[in-house]
Amino acid sequence: MERDGEWFTFKDSSLSPGDDYYLIIDGLELPDPRSNYQPEGVHGPSRIVDHGDFQWSDQAWEGFDLSTSVLYELHIGTCSPQGTFDGAIEKLPHLVDLGVGAIELMPVAEFPGKRGWGYDGVDIYAPHHHYGGPDGLKRLVDASHAIGLGVVLDVVYNHLGPDGNYLSKFAPYFTDRYLTPWGAAVNFDDSYSHEVRDFFIDNALMWLRDYHFDGLRIDAVHAIFDSSAVHFLEELQVQVAGLESEVGRRFFLIAESDLNDPRLIWPKERGGYGLSAQWSDDFHHSLHCVLTGERDGYYEDFGSVADLAASIREAYVYSGRFSNFRKRNHGRKTGIDDGGRFIVYLQNHDQVGNRANGERTSHLMSNERLKIGAAIVLLSPFVPMLFQGEEWGASTPFLYFTDHEDLELGEAVRRGRRQEFASFGWDPDEVPDPQDPATFERSKLDWDEPLQSPHFDLLEWYRSLIALRSKLPDLASHDLSSTKTFHSESGWIVIERGRVAIACNLSDRSIKLEIGSRSSVLLSSAPIEVYGTVIAMPSESVGILEVERAVSPGTKEVSSERLDG
Amino acid sequence: MERDGEWFTFKDSSLSPGDDYYLIIDGLELPDPRSNYQPEGVHGPSRIVDHGDFQWSDQAWEGFDLSTSVLYELHIGTCSPQGTFDGAIEKLPHLVDLGVGAIELMPVAEFPGKRGWGYDGVDIYAPHHHYGGPDGLKRLVDASHAIGLGVVLDVVYNHLGPDGNYLSKFAPYFTDRYLTPWGAAVNFDDSYSHEVRDFFIDNALMWLRDYHFDGLRIDAVHAIFDSSAVHFLEELQVQVAGLESEVGRRFFLIAESDLNDPRLIWPKERGGYGLSAQWSDDFHHSLHCVLTGERDGYYEDFGSVADLAASIREAYVYSGRFSNFRKRNHGRKTGIDDGGRFIVYLQNHDQVGNRANGERTSHLMSNERLKIGAAIVLLSPFVPMLFQGEEWGASTPFLYFTDHEDLELGEAVRRGRRQEFASFGWDPDEVPDPQDPATFERSKLDWDEPLQSPHFDLLEWYRSLIALRSKLPDLASHDLSSTKTFHSESGWIVIERGRVAIACNLSDRSIKLEIGSRSSVLLSSAPIEVYGTVIAMPSESVGILEVERAVSPGTKEVSSERLDG
Repeated sequence: MERDGEWFTFKDSSLSPGDDYYLIIDGLELPDPRSNYQPEGVHGPSRIVDHGDFQWSDQAWEGFDLSTSVLYELHIGTCSPQGTFDGAIEKLPHLVDLGVGAIELMPVAEFPGKRGWGYDGVDIYAPHHHYGGPDGLKRLVDASHAIGLGVVLDVVYNHLGPDGNYLSKFAPYFTDRYLTPWGAAVNFDDSYSHEVRDFFIDNALMWLRDYHFDGLRIDAVHAIFDSSAVHFLEELQVQVAGLESEVGRRFFLIAESDLNDPRLIWPKERGGYGLSAQWSDDFHHSLHCVLTGERDGYYEDFGSVADLAASIREAYVYSGRFSNFRKRNHGRKTGIDDGGRFIVYLQNHDQVGNRANGERTSHLMSNERLKIGAAIVLLSPFVPMLFQGEEWGASTPFLYFTDHEDLELGEAVRRGRRQEFASFGWDPDEVPDPQDPATFERSKLDWDEPLQSPHFDLLEWYRSLIALRSKLPDLASHDLSSTKTFHSESGWIVIERGRVAIACNLSDRSIKLEIGSRSSVLLSSAPIEVYGTVIAMPSESVGILEVERAVSPGTKEVSSERLDG
Repeated sequence: MERDGEWFTFKDSSLSPGDDYYLIIDGLELPDPRSNYQPEGVHGPSRIVDHGDFQWSDQAWEGFDLSTSVLYELHIGTCSPQGTFDGAIEKLPHLVDLGVGAIELMPVAEFPGKRGWGYDGVDIYAPHHHYGGPDGLKRLVDASHAIGLGVVLDVVYNHLGPDGNYLSKFAPYFTDRYLTPWGAAVNFDDSYSHEVRDFFIDNALMWLRDYHFDGLRIDAVHAIFDSSAVHFLEELQVQVAGLESEVGRRFFLIAESDLNDPRLIWPKERGGYGLSAQWSDDFHHSLHCVLTGERDGYYEDFGSVADLAASIREAYVYSGRFSNFRKRNHGRKTGIDDGGRFIVYLQNHDQVGNRANGERTSHLMSNERLKIGAAIVLLSPFVPMLFQGEEWGASTPFLYFTDHEDLELGEAVRRGRRQEFASFGWDPDEVPDPQDPATFERSKLDWDEPLQSPHFDLLEWYRSLIALRSKLPDLASHDLSSTKTFHSESGWIVIERGRVAIACNLSDRSIKLEIGSRSSVLLSSAPIEVYGTVIAMPSESVGILEVERAVSPGTKEVSSERLDG
């Protein structure tokens, strides 16, 4: 490398695509921070990749529309028996058949070892070598586009994993101005931050330009600390918009955020960062709590049907009020009437995998309740997202697994996991060991299941709901101002979306609801009877109704006597 | 105190106004964090104050208009021989005579010892007992209003001083999530932050409501770290607006910020915090560097006449470009055409007092250059602010002084100050000792000076400029879009504000400028001759001209030959 002031420039004309190299700093052989491929892992040499070499077949791909799609989150290592990009390709027809519009890949950047969720990635430009490297990833994106699926990638810009993270040897990529759950924060606003910002922005542009991704899901943006006048995420959005104009395709930036701060998605004119959408954990938590009755940890802030109703109308439940879990006021009104700016889900990798036993929603409740939950998510005014295998209630868990080659670190992770759950009353020995290969193997989907009962029945339910959503414009709409909810704390909720009403009976008794309109049943999880403006629902059931006129604000439960009279 | 859950309530009905008390925590006698008066200093007892007891005479006061006023920053301890609120009252007629619209008091909250700038305050509800306590402060505000002056108070919400700061004994007022230059940050967004925010918001409301202040200057808001969806400053502004409606008077919130981030003053509809104004250090630095030629420290980022011209048109010089001092990109376009949202100054307590010898601008340059600087500030499209004594070029310095009773801390401050300037090449023994009472005494204004030459001459110049500003609507305007600048790096600049042009010759030679319009001289620091559309200016001079039509974009220096021809 040649020194030019504070810079070292690397120009070795003898290197060609396919050649391996190290950068030598202070006598240490280190991988290139911008390595495109780490064929031997995070500590090995970097390999030169020429993105122009890949033969793309997706010239006709015009992009997908996030707001009209159902997303499907998947993890490359466990979504197919092979655990590779090519393995995932084989599963795409199933997703198209289900009605999914785009897949969202959990992080694929090179992380230590063979097994992991991907949030410990350190070579953020290099698709994991065990998944199939750059070419494998390009084949997956290309195949997805060929079959009509968009592809979103989960990227982690708030920290890098602890093992194989050599960035500090090169430049001030980190700052001690802020403290994150993972230690020193990435330097987004201190000296030399302009170069650090470019490091991540160029990464985003690479995935969109060179790998043909349609969008990025940005992990935990609340841990991206940036006091600059132009926040990193705003700058990222501006750069991505520039690439959009250049290539003539629409790109989506989706934020995961713990802040309930609509500034992320407000347009620039309103002082926002202009991102496409954000995940709504409030929606998940309020739905999860109503369905399961759980109240541990952050679930203590949720649990009422009123919270669920609020989350359906406003995406946030906490829009300024006091959170008992956080012990402070939380969030603000979104000021946004477009539900297409929020991603909702019955579960995602986090809520499943952060349980000691990696239980999916299907492990926690009856099939009847599952169907109600699925209907609320898939017919919501938001953008629904499924987690791999959810659609058939996969019996396999999604556990937390790692493969730290640094054995001390592996032991620390193992111990940390045990301690975490011990505080919830677990016997430490019963907490699955993240480092054990079996923990990973158990998390792989069993693709024989979707064809078997009762999985097949649930799969059909998901398929019908998605089909209904695409068929009826009232369900495809994201107009939050026209979404109304009627509920009772005794366990039912009616969600009105134009001329369609989703009536849910979450209680363990059959109920009759006076909804103030005549209706007919479009789809239901159990037989629903309609008597004039009254509907009779079995316990734990959901019915999707076409209503003749607006549901009455006076919607209420009626007794059998009154009905007969 | 009685315990109620996580709270202790203090209700001792035997206490009356004037009574002293301590709060006892873990056996320690501590002052009340919300103490209204600390008659024996930061470690002593708190005294009960009934704000209803004071006899106000300012019922007819309708508030002042920040945007049409000239501010005057003063420090209670040094602006009068007495160094008290009552002492300051005696100086108010001078300020009215000068044409000032409002005074801005450096922090008055109880700080350790008798002498200090005030930024080490710890009892933020208690006016300093050496200044005259609550009643003294009320007398000053009342007298100011009686004579037609508004009053703004400097408040410090980003940290508390190190000595006498007992807040952590009471509750989590601080957090280690963020690091500030003063250690742990105030807890604005972590658990229990809602109460911490209220602690500061109630304080702001108290000054405005119970002390009749017209506005607050909020110190170093870049050190207020808050990731909440609603930033502390936005919440503060909302609460202050509520009080405005309640009492029917206009309040101003003015931020000092190092961020060049217009979000502070953008309206809420644009995602801003809606503050009234912010200080513009860029304006100061660019003007200071052009006038003095200094380039040390943060001045390295400034120095060209083009920077000065930019700061006059846009308030920020750094609106996104790379700062060599900061080693990163800095700031963003303000998107604001109203110069009334920015406070500008030739100097303030910081730039004077942060020099080893506390030199004012008048110690650093000729009277001729001073006059040019004053004209640029006072006839700018922004809100001008003077620093006490500036108007007569006070010969007294404004040094950094402290009176830490904690002698170890005092020694640390002394040593820190010496080391800081040693790094700039100073002999440590020549750096004035902040703890020495003489350092404070030397900083007191000498009120005999304004009547003496050459001070009187400068005072007249300031008075004339302020009078001109109030007389001519073109100069009172804050329309940045109609403010134009023409300049040459060879040392002149013409600032056009409607039909008034401020022509400045900063060079050491006489020049002739072709400005493309006939003009007449309204005011000048030296004889200016007008020949048709050309003006002839002596070296280091400024002329305020009435122009017949717009100054030509082709404004340029012309040779004598051409003029004669």
